[in-house]
Amino acid sequence: MAVRILGLDPGLRVTGWGLIEAEGNRLAHRGAGVLRIAEAAPMAARLADLFEQVSDLIDGQAPHEVAIEEVFVNRNPTSTLKLGQARGVVLLAPARAGLPVFEYAPNLIKKSVVGTGHAAKEQVAMMVSTLLPEARRDVPADATDALAVAICHAHHRGAAGRAAAGGGR
Amino acid sequence: MAVRILGLDPGLRVTGWGLIEAEGNRLAHRGAGVLRIAEAAPMAARLADLFEQVSDLIDGQAPHEVAIEEVFVNRNPTSTLKLGQARGVVLLAPARAGLPVFEYAPNLIKKSVVGTGHAAKEQVAMMVSTLLPEARRDVPADATDALAVAICHAHHRGAAGRAAAGGGR
Repeated sequence: MAVRILGLDPGLRVTGWGLIEAEGNRLAHRGAGVLRIAEAAPMAARLADLFEQVSDLIDGQAPHEVAIEEVFVNRNPTSTLKLGQARGVVLLAPARAGLPVFEYAPNLIKKSVVGTGHAAKEQVAMMVSTLLPEARRDVPADATDALAVAICHAHHRGAAGRAAAGGGR
Repeated sequence: MAVRILGLDPGLRVTGWGLIEAEGNRLAHRGAGVLRIAEAAPMAARLADLFEQVSDLIDGQAPHEVAIEEVFVNRNPTSTLKLGQARGVVLLAPARAGLPVFEYAPNLIKKSVVGTGHAAKEQVAMMVSTLLPEARRDVPADATDALAVAICHAHHRGAAGRAAAGGGR
């Protein structure tokens, strides 16, 4: 049976998403896009907006499993805290919907998609469109990383992968 | 009319809460406690647990307004990101319940409660129990800062305070 995997790349302004179907080794692109959050509103309202958009996306796209990139935290602390707030809400939405959520380190995602953990952003984008040829035309740049983490999860979702990813819920 | 103010001090393991009623200059203690999150579970499940506990608290205590401390981000980046995730979920719960949420800087909270922005933790605790004598017996240490931010909001919730706090939603 084909498994629908939703990849998410959370941010407080822009959250990328990409949906694929995986059946054995075959992957198929099912959709991709970005969610945008108004910057003018107070933080709690922005988080509520983000939560509702991710929840609506999950309702509409009906994924079976959700994959999210673990975050690099080499920015300034205030940005890291804000990114954490957005990320908490994006992790919460699928958990509240009863879906298993998997986190993958950036290096593992690059290794899964490109074959090396130190690939450049452009190499990841090129391999995503090679692995998912249907995605070539209609995928916004901000959704590429979301598709990449979905592909990574498709490769690792066996029993071993679950353990490596720290499990669902 | 008395306003019920819920103060929250978010954390990924322990979230303190304190409820007060404010009527003019009079403050009354209405409750305080801590929410504890199991550390063993995967992140998404912990965040879902936290969201449900905060939402249940709001349902049970029926506050009119919610106040949360802005966070010091002088820790290591990984801790800051995790704290951000917990904080995002704690900010989301009252916003989803339709309540206005206010954030206050740590210095402003200390200034409101103790009279100086550089008070020690013990001074804050002592002033909280002076301002809320009923709270003396039954308030866990982890709930003191939550009561302090609630008191701070009681002092600043006029029109000027709202602007200073960045507004509700």
